[in-house]
Amino acid sequence: MCAQQEDYIQTYLAAIEDELQQAVKQAHDNGNTQLHDMLAYHMGWQGKPVNIDARGKRIRPLLVLMTCSAAGGDWKQALPAAAAVELVHNFSLIHDDIEDRSPLRRGRPTVWKKWGIPQAINAGDAMLTLAHLQLIRLTGKKSPSIVLNAVEILQQACLHLTQGQYMDLAYEKRNNVTIDDYWYMVEGKTAALISVSTELGALSANCDDQTRIIYRSFGRLLGLAFQVQDDLLGIWGDADITGKSNQSDLITRKKTLPVLYGLSNSGEFTECWNQAPVCPDQAEKLIDLLEKAGGKSYTLAKAMELINNALNMLKEAHPMGSAGQDLKNFVLNLIHRQG
Amino acid sequence: MCAQQEDYIQTYLAAIEDELQQAVKQAHDNGNTQLHDMLAYHMGWQGKPVNIDARGKRIRPLLVLMTCSAAGGDWKQALPAAAAVELVHNFSLIHDDIEDRSPLRRGRPTVWKKWGIPQAINAGDAMLTLAHLQLIRLTGKKSPSIVLNAVEILQQACLHLTQGQYMDLAYEKRNNVTIDDYWYMVEGKTAALISVSTELGALSANCDDQTRIIYRSFGRLLGLAFQVQDDLLGIWGDADITGKSNQSDLITRKKTLPVLYGLSNSGEFTECWNQAPVCPDQAEKLIDLLEKAGGKSYTLAKAMELINNALNMLKEAHPMGSAGQDLKNFVLNLIHRQG
Repeated sequence: MCAQQEDYIQTYLAAIEDELQQAVKQAHDNGNTQLHDMLAYHMGWQGKPVNIDARGKRIRPLLVLMTCSAAGGDWKQALPAAAAVELVHNFSLIHDDIEDRSPLRRGRPTVWKKWGIPQAINAGDAMLTLAHLQLIRLTGKKSPSIVLNAVEILQQACLHLTQGQYMDLAYEKRNNVTIDDYWYMVEGKTAALISVSTELGALSANCDDQTRIIYRSFGRLLGLAFQVQDDLLGIWGDADITGKSNQSDLITRKKTLPVLYGLSNSGEFTECWNQAPVCPDQAEKLIDLLEKAGGKSYTLAKAMELINNALNMLKEAHPMGSAGQDLKNFVLNLIHRQG
Repeated sequence: MCAQQEDYIQTYLAAIEDELQQAVKQAHDNGNTQLHDMLAYHMGWQGKPVNIDARGKRIRPLLVLMTCSAAGGDWKQALPAAAAVELVHNFSLIHDDIEDRSPLRRGRPTVWKKWGIPQAINAGDAMLTLAHLQLIRLTGKKSPSIVLNAVEILQQACLHLTQGQYMDLAYEKRNNVTIDDYWYMVEGKTAALISVSTELGALSANCDDQTRIIYRSFGRLLGLAFQVQDDLLGIWGDADITGKSNQSDLITRKKTLPVLYGLSNSGEFTECWNQAPVCPDQAEKLIDLLEKAGGKSYTLAKAMELINNALNMLKEAHPMGSAGQDLKNFVLNLIHRQG
């Protein structure tokens, strides 16, 4: 990333953080800050360590602002939408961590680990509500009918998210998950919120409906690519950069794309996989078998195909000037990320 | 209740049920009905037994429609708002049941008991999302700015609900809960959603802002009265009608208004209460001590005071004709309910 790119990203990130903090402050209740503090902890502003890593990458709100700019809008107008999608993402993380019983998130204890499951469920509910409240702050910047359109788009994405999450949880208990099932789940679980990011960015730029829908499709393809890349990094990533062992996806028996490929294309892999639970030695063997069966190259090719489709879709939206180039570069960086 | 009242209530209830079913159908996902079926079960439309009891009383949506009529509006216009508040209420029940580890709701296993905690958390999230999606259906009946106003009012109530729920969960672990703390919690936990019911009813009738706010205050007072009445029934209600033992609130150590009164006014009660856990014999003794200390009459007087305040507030809103009388009667029936 060149210095100029870094500059505008830093500007965006600072504005996003400010907007997010304003949103979360609404959880203050007559001087009572406890609920707020749970949310502030999850967002990486409180608790130890407080640092950039504890906040996550803010990829979705960056996409909202960058799409707004690329579509010829003023990125500041898109800040409520940017905060809203990031808060929905974080709501889903708080609840996912309970559902998956994950003890750690971004290197720190998860909300349910610190405050117990009942308070963590409720904190997630509050975070979701704050997301939608923040989106309504578009009022004043946009006409009521545009704001209402944004509200509906985000709620539909939330519904899609819960449908994807239903599948993800159901697949854990199923032995016959197919690659088709995988795409169906990922559409909701990952692509819905990334496509809403680019769509709301375009909406904030006052795009016509057709262009807005093209930006949405671009986001959807990007979201699918993002998930496939995540699956790749979960097995072949650099553990020092991803922050987790490249055996953990296998040990927790995640039905990722390479695993599903292995299950439908390699008897040897399937046999080894079915000897649950997976121990570290077995994980190494599974990785070898996957590579031999072509699971790594298949997944890599799929990621590349999706990212190319996403970039072609972006071209169709005719993104403007340097902001358009920035968005393209951001996408390329995302897909070449190592963690 | 006279025959005429029953008639219009049946008409309202049928229309509410239809609107709710339309809303929940949106959880259907490309022919996949599993997530939908969890929600339909909770709503009392699927699973055994399917009967009116499994659905709950639909008090909040009835209040929306009745307030709309009393404020001179067409109740059919308020149906999306009526369904929305009932869905928010049911979202909170699904999550509350997990948080409280309640195995039964309306005489049937709770959602988490049937499908496990992870799927139940996600089902609650879906229910909340469907609530807000349904409210947006006011579009077409109302101008975008009125719909947006309704959306914000409901989201603010949801935030208030999570603030109240935070307190309710926190109080379980605290020994020094005061009557002031109680009111603070009940404002969010119960009053927020009942005040939003009357407010959205008024909004759907195109009331001016001042009248709408009076209807909201009426709902708030009614909500507070409703909770106090609930606390009374939890100890002195007829178990055959309430459907639960009048010892269960004491055995689960709920910090209800009569209990908090006992703790601050009766040394004998406090001593007995502190001998946790409460067994059935002790529960009978606690009830006796509460009555002796005046806890029952205090709570009853408080309920009456609140209901009178609510009725006075309703008078200020100048409800119209027979619909206004119906609303008043509905309130009186609510407070004289036995279960």
